[in-house]
Amino acid sequence: MPVGTVGTVKGTRFEALESEELDARIILGNTYHLWLRPGAETVAACGGLHKFMGWDRAILTDSGGFQVWSLGDLRKINEEGTEFRSHVDGSPRFLSPEVSMQVQAALGSEIVMVLDKCAPGDAEHDVARESMLLTARWAARSRARFDALQKEGADTGRLEERDGLSGAQALFGIVQGASHLNLRRESLARTAEIGFDGYAIGGLSVGEEKSVMYEVVERIAPVMPKEKPRYLMGVGTPEDLIECVGRGVDMFDCVLPTRNGRTGQAFTSRGKLNIKNARYARDTRPLDADCACSVCRRHSRAYLRHLYATGEMLASILLTHHNLAFFLDTMRRVRQAIRSGDFTRFRQEFIERINSGIE
Amino acid sequence: MPVGTVGTVKGTRFEALESEELDARIILGNTYHLWLRPGAETVAACGGLHKFMGWDRAILTDSGGFQVWSLGDLRKINEEGTEFRSHVDGSPRFLSPEVSMQVQAALGSEIVMVLDKCAPGDAEHDVARESMLLTARWAARSRARFDALQKEGADTGRLEERDGLSGAQALFGIVQGASHLNLRRESLARTAEIGFDGYAIGGLSVGEEKSVMYEVVERIAPVMPKEKPRYLMGVGTPEDLIECVGRGVDMFDCVLPTRNGRTGQAFTSRGKLNIKNARYARDTRPLDADCACSVCRRHSRAYLRHLYATGEMLASILLTHHNLAFFLDTMRRVRQAIRSGDFTRFRQEFIERINSGIE
Repeated sequence: MPVGTVGTVKGTRFEALESEELDARIILGNTYHLWLRPGAETVAACGGLHKFMGWDRAILTDSGGFQVWSLGDLRKINEEGTEFRSHVDGSPRFLSPEVSMQVQAALGSEIVMVLDKCAPGDAEHDVARESMLLTARWAARSRARFDALQKEGADTGRLEERDGLSGAQALFGIVQGASHLNLRRESLARTAEIGFDGYAIGGLSVGEEKSVMYEVVERIAPVMPKEKPRYLMGVGTPEDLIECVGRGVDMFDCVLPTRNGRTGQAFTSRGKLNIKNARYARDTRPLDADCACSVCRRHSRAYLRHLYATGEMLASILLTHHNLAFFLDTMRRVRQAIRSGDFTRFRQEFIERINSGIE
Repeated sequence: MPVGTVGTVKGTRFEALESEELDARIILGNTYHLWLRPGAETVAACGGLHKFMGWDRAILTDSGGFQVWSLGDLRKINEEGTEFRSHVDGSPRFLSPEVSMQVQAALGSEIVMVLDKCAPGDAEHDVARESMLLTARWAARSRARFDALQKEGADTGRLEERDGLSGAQALFGIVQGASHLNLRRESLARTAEIGFDGYAIGGLSVGEEKSVMYEVVERIAPVMPKEKPRYLMGVGTPEDLIECVGRGVDMFDCVLPTRNGRTGQAFTSRGKLNIKNARYARDTRPLDADCACSVCRRHSRAYLRHLYATGEMLASILLTHHNLAFFLDTMRRVRQAIRSGDFTRFRQEFIERINSGIE
């Protein structure tokens, strides 16, 4: 899922996301950002997030919790929820499972995430357990409020009235527990007991060693409910996607293709290419000779480097487009390989190639 | 002509410029900017400006003179040319008619502009006359060097080798003389005597009263060679385009649609709309109900305002797209009205409507 933080996948028109080339079926919206600006009431007044953005396809919204920890000021957390100050205007805010469900219902996303508490990647067992248990209690409260809101939406006919509170949203639970496998297993059991439409692994890719992430995914993903989507939050590089699919994950979201596009980094089949590098000044080759995207078909490294060097917006637009094309195409190829029973070979060739170096 | 300063119409993909919706047949490139970055040699090494940018349609390049006056530091002008320092890296540079022709040949644009000397809009007669006479002498030198370069390009077969020095470029002369009609007439006579593929009116829209601009255009455009394109440089608003077409002008270039798009201003059939205005916070209507562009079909004022308020690149991208659509569509309608003998009525209705105010 490309990430559409404040209601836009940065630098990308929706027509491009819908084009055959990218064909993004679902994007992520950040509840925290949209709640602060333009505000849930404004989005609701405009008919929900789909109508507000002009995007008919699916949206997953996160709970807002992660951004409260990373962006909010003066956080005070207790059983009830978290007090913090908006990083935009300093206004005092309170986020609880109930508030998160209410905001996500107003946004009207297809997939709603429970409010969780993410411990640091290197959290000690006791700290991690406390966060995990709070996550489980908040998951139950999220579930209850979500169900009430869905019923209310259906009862009042808002389902028909607008796309927002549709009565047809899905709710995903989140497995926490930092790097402690016993806590992860306990978290999964407690979350599955409540029952959700899908299950996510949260609290990874937050500073821990990559081997720790792979280990947790390898041990936990296979024991997550088989018939429900398994979603690894905030991950990752192309290699991470392949490796974690190999360990049982179905869904990912990550800002890498868009954020790194804006800072001049292109992901290619032969690894990362830094367009700022002077060696590309007169390089008339495309970013990736094996990429069929519109940027690679049309523009040279020399031109993209020039755009970046002169601070032109088109550098971000084009690098973002290529990166999204590369990520989404990689996942399309993953699905094809799985369907044709070829995943193991595909994985090996992909990893070998991506480590072979830019020509 | 949309303006593509350093080889990009800011915030706009070439696919959009080529789309039926915009269908820009020609864009402008700034010789000054491209000469400094990435440099004429780099563009030439990449096969000329068309190949460098990935744009097959026509390009007009200006002479670089205007930017030297407005952006260059420590200018020292004499008969030979102008010494200045690059605004990018402070390096000393020298621009003369010969250098300008050489750079524009390396860029390989379809239309090349002579190097001229633009006097301030309020220049006294003596100052304006001196600039005008220098412009005439530089025009003759531009013509001579241009012809030699074209011949050289044809002789050495570079015509076949690459799109750059094609032997098939066109050269336009420029009429100067500030607000003094007798100087303008003298400038036109001197320029026409040298003989060019098209004629431009320069040195307007540089701080003079609008009535002065209209007066100069009204007196000069009709006496410019009938069988050659008449190009008014750096103009202007939608009203200016209509008024100056009415006075005999065929071609325009202006940064207004792109620059104002980036600062939150939309041009509409009912005048300018400032998307920053709080009144649009929940306004679900398009920028312009009478506009059929993809932005107006898809996005609301509320969404565009939100994008602008949160500093999102997509605000610039979408407002620029709409503005280009409005300007290019206006000119398409002008051409239709002229063909059908309806221009007088079209002009009256257009001006009345654009002054009627945003709803």
